[in-house]
Amino acid sequence: MKMNPLKSLISIEEAHKIIGNSIKPISEVEYIDILELEGRVSAEDIISPMDVPPFRRASMDGFAIKSSDTFNASAENPILLECIDIIQAGDVPKKEIKSGECVQIATGAMVPNSADSVIQVELTELINGKVQIISPIAPGTNISKAGIDLKKGEIVVRKGDVFTPGKIGALASINKTSVLVYKKPRVAIIPTGNEIAKLGSSLKEGQVYDINTYTIATLVKKNGGNPIIFDIIPDEIQKIESAILKGLEYDIILLSGGSSVGERDLNIKIIQKYGKVLFHGVQIKPGKPTLYGLIKDKPILNLPGYPTSCLTNSYIFLVPIIRKLGNLPPERPRTIQAKLSKKIVSRLGRHQIYTVRLENGYAIPVFKESGAITSIAWADGYIEIPYNVDLLEKDEIVNVYLF
Amino acid sequence: MKMNPLKSLISIEEAHKIIGNSIKPISEVEYIDILELEGRVSAEDIISPMDVPPFRRASMDGFAIKSSDTFNASAENPILLECIDIIQAGDVPKKEIKSGECVQIATGAMVPNSADSVIQVELTELINGKVQIISPIAPGTNISKAGIDLKKGEIVVRKGDVFTPGKIGALASINKTSVLVYKKPRVAIIPTGNEIAKLGSSLKEGQVYDINTYTIATLVKKNGGNPIIFDIIPDEIQKIESAILKGLEYDIILLSGGSSVGERDLNIKIIQKYGKVLFHGVQIKPGKPTLYGLIKDKPILNLPGYPTSCLTNSYIFLVPIIRKLGNLPPERPRTIQAKLSKKIVSRLGRHQIYTVRLENGYAIPVFKESGAITSIAWADGYIEIPYNVDLLEKDEIVNVYLF
Repeated sequence: MKMNPLKSLISIEEAHKIIGNSIKPISEVEYIDILELEGRVSAEDIISPMDVPPFRRASMDGFAIKSSDTFNASAENPILLECIDIIQAGDVPKKEIKSGECVQIATGAMVPNSADSVIQVELTELINGKVQIISPIAPGTNISKAGIDLKKGEIVVRKGDVFTPGKIGALASINKTSVLVYKKPRVAIIPTGNEIAKLGSSLKEGQVYDINTYTIATLVKKNGGNPIIFDIIPDEIQKIESAILKGLEYDIILLSGGSSVGERDLNIKIIQKYGKVLFHGVQIKPGKPTLYGLIKDKPILNLPGYPTSCLTNSYIFLVPIIRKLGNLPPERPRTIQAKLSKKIVSRLGRHQIYTVRLENGYAIPVFKESGAITSIAWADGYIEIPYNVDLLEKDEIVNVYLF
Repeated sequence: MKMNPLKSLISIEEAHKIIGNSIKPISEVEYIDILELEGRVSAEDIISPMDVPPFRRASMDGFAIKSSDTFNASAENPILLECIDIIQAGDVPKKEIKSGECVQIATGAMVPNSADSVIQVELTELINGKVQIISPIAPGTNISKAGIDLKKGEIVVRKGDVFTPGKIGALASINKTSVLVYKKPRVAIIPTGNEIAKLGSSLKEGQVYDINTYTIATLVKKNGGNPIIFDIIPDEIQKIESAILKGLEYDIILLSGGSSVGERDLNIKIIQKYGKVLFHGVQIKPGKPTLYGLIKDKPILNLPGYPTSCLTNSYIFLVPIIRKLGNLPPERPRTIQAKLSKKIVSRLGRHQIYTVRLENGYAIPVFKESGAITSIAWADGYIEIPYNVDLLEKDEIVNVYLF
């Protein structure tokens, strides 16, 4: 086999820029039920077909009154109103009030047209069966106008908005039960390698179980993608080629392994044959040999084969790709500050991803080697050591990106 | 109707303490496929049944050698080894090496027993078909020992661990395809109120559409719970009572509305009849009338009826309940700092939740009123104003909790 060391590595920033310029958010749409919308992206401007609330309602429990009846009210000059009805939420007012009258009203209930204020129950007293008021009430007090929440014709949710519980509530308020959203990106995950065994099979000598398919598929789902898992393809160029061509039916193709020098260079040859390589080799550790290209405008990302390199590079490169494909905004990572439990020596010129466990405010390095999945499985998150830093001191405060 | 104002409010901290002491994490378990595990909680210690990797493997592309052959190597005294075989990943070594020999080996491939080091390809040169080495190589170089990742008998995942992509990768490495996890808490959501109309129906006069069921169900799912949505129950004590008794089949009952004073006090009467009220009224704004109790050890949370009060109180009280029921650790909120776009006046003695939109580094208050779902639908998150603060100044830096 030929072994050509990777010579020119690009920076992470360059890699992100190349990826960003090459990814087009998917435009396919589908209707989704309101109860399944969380985290999905609206593909339509949603306009309110009605006023919400559709009627004037009381925003407090109390008495609907004519405010002018109270303008001269004071402790010395209390006014007494006759209560002529009770309106519960959901009721339609049956009686209108005249000056000197009021109706008892519950929060959320429709206010009679003849009333212009609601005085809250705490400010009244019942005196000989009449409602006593001892201070003036301004017109409009404790009344929510029709359309205060949403006016007919107003935009409720904009195209591109991500559905939160609150936005879903706004849809419910206008009886919108089904919404046009962008489809989830379909992600072809193609495991390759003679040394990789399918879960559930028995290991042959020299083989290890397929880890990357499961870590990648999980991360894809967590970021709004839909993983399609291919059978494991042996290291034979025709078989990999035909799997990749089949993968073009989907929105992106993911390979892991086979991008290092010496690994027969099968994947890169196939990408060069049908499309173009956009980068090969990134100044990142672990995970240098990451390879990225396009075949017929479909992105193809070849992650390193080693499980921890594969997964850390998935956090760094794959997550933004899947989110952009899916019309989702960039992730807002959860971070926490911690003290480093021991000195870490890094290498200038490589952006290092270092997995850590959190304990009592300390970030404890747990990195064993990039081949060991426990380097990341037993970590709570990772720290980043930039190109130009070669040493982090014990007790230094670091930013931990949580998994 | 009687209207008894809420007199003694408890603090949020007391409310959380009462809730915390009354909630028992659920103990029911189920087997779940590895591809569905993300965010689920292991109900078992998972022990590795094997060494990972199961064999000594090369961690670099290069040549497997006897290190002793190289101890005297130098630029002046290069040594030449005869390459007798090629071992690709997945191959079983067919030949053992003698002194003076080497085999070419790929990353991840099994190292022959007779070799004790792998020299990386970049440090060698091919001279007349032989492999030239010009520096000594230490024993063990570039070899991952069997079991370096996981040893047979070692704990891979502990009971109570939440499955991340990394932990799922560790399961894959030991061929664990199905895992015992805690069941999701089943959450009975019982919408009540004559004024509430079911989505899909046409509104009667005086009615609004059911918002809270959808916001709560979404938040429950997002936090690992399984919502069970009841039909809307009218304000009739027998019907609410029978719905609540049916709700006892589930792990928690959620009501919204009917907990304010004057709202006929139906819910509180039913809780008092069959169980006990643990608190009624919290020093929080919006959302004061929140009511919490136990019936036959099942928690019952009665959220305020107004959509924004209901949802903000769900973020504050319901999320920790659902996560604790589901054996999940407390949420690690995503926060961001922003400058307040304008002065906010709060009220001493109430912990205020104030929804904001983010724009150009500013947090812009969007709160209209607690009855308006757009007070939260159009927000990116919320800020908290503690009891003892009555004013936030324009341009003050605030912590925004993101939805």
